[in-house]
Amino acid sequence: MSDFTAFPPSLQKLVQQLSRLPTIGTKSAMRLAYHMLSNEPDLVDTLREALKEAKEKIRHCEKCFFITETPICSVCTNPNRDIALLCVVERPVDVISIERSGEYRGIYHVLHGLWAPLRGKGPESMKFKELLERIRKEKIREVILALNATVEGDATSLYIAKALSDLGVGATRLAHGLPKGGELEFADDVTLSHAFTGRRAI
Amino acid sequence: MSDFTAFPPSLQKLVQQLSRLPTIGTKSAMRLAYHMLSNEPDLVDTLREALKEAKEKIRHCEKCFFITETPICSVCTNPNRDIALLCVVERPVDVISIERSGEYRGIYHVLHGLWAPLRGKGPESMKFKELLERIRKEKIREVILALNATVEGDATSLYIAKALSDLGVGATRLAHGLPKGGELEFADDVTLSHAFTGRRAI
Repeated sequence: MSDFTAFPPSLQKLVQQLSRLPTIGTKSAMRLAYHMLSNEPDLVDTLREALKEAKEKIRHCEKCFFITETPICSVCTNPNRDIALLCVVERPVDVISIERSGEYRGIYHVLHGLWAPLRGKGPESMKFKELLERIRKEKIREVILALNATVEGDATSLYIAKALSDLGVGATRLAHGLPKGGELEFADDVTLSHAFTGRRAI
Repeated sequence: MSDFTAFPPSLQKLVQQLSRLPTIGTKSAMRLAYHMLSNEPDLVDTLREALKEAKEKIRHCEKCFFITETPICSVCTNPNRDIALLCVVERPVDVISIERSGEYRGIYHVLHGLWAPLRGKGPESMKFKELLERIRKEKIREVILALNATVEGDATSLYIAKALSDLGVGATRLAHGLPKGGELEFADDVTLSHAFTGRRAI
């Protein structure tokens, strides 16, 4: 750090931008930047192109708020999906984790937030109103609450379960295959699969 | 993995490009991609710009082969450097590590390779001829061989030390502060600093 000025400004700038990414520190950023510039200069261009394209095309599904390039996502438009089974997750990456486990054949609703009153986040900070609207309009048989096994995840599950029971819809949440405090995104496929199979009513 | 087709093609492409980076697997790449697109869309643009600028501007110093934006790098042109003390390293990142330790005030020579006959890499696969040329032209008092403490690093040190002794120039190598088999790039500042102070003749 002490003599960072010895390095070309454009490299410093690149390292600075790369270290804004989660889990990437200055040392890692330097290694990544150097690897691209020295060993794979073509990666610089393909990565730039991929970033541009993804930013231009990616949006949220109008129905479930998962990421998509079309107005309605590929899960919602898939005729082989059970559209009476709705899985509620916090973030699009959670859909990705669940799809990878290969266990689930229903559809999704991505909240894009959690109910966290201690951080000043009420129901309006997540796609909760939209969820209730879907429950009213669509013929949903069961709602699976697949939120992280954290305090905020649990609180949000209870909050939503209460609202759903008022609407007469049954809710389940993932079985205790998830380790306490663990985040869904980092669970392995088998654990996630077990968690789906053993889900129970709340 | 099994149902990767559920994700938008542009996201798949971005994940694919990001996972070409060292130490970034598919899961990490997905997390990075998602983070940028969801939480920091402006990072996509600044990162693209930084990549473009770095690729256009970064080249090798004509004298020492470190990375620079000018024909001669900022270390070689720094009047406060001891130009009779030459440190030989394998890669530009090694210069960066050494500069960070703040111990060294001489100049550098970056080999961009090692002598590795088992992998078919002879002296011509590194900036060895250029090193001998510098030794002949510049008034070098001492050459410090700061190569990784690996088999190939050690072999290259011996190979260069032999050639230098034929030219009548003394060579030292870094003290055994570096753990055996360890790579210079990952050493902490204190270890590197000790290694510089305790260097010995070979």
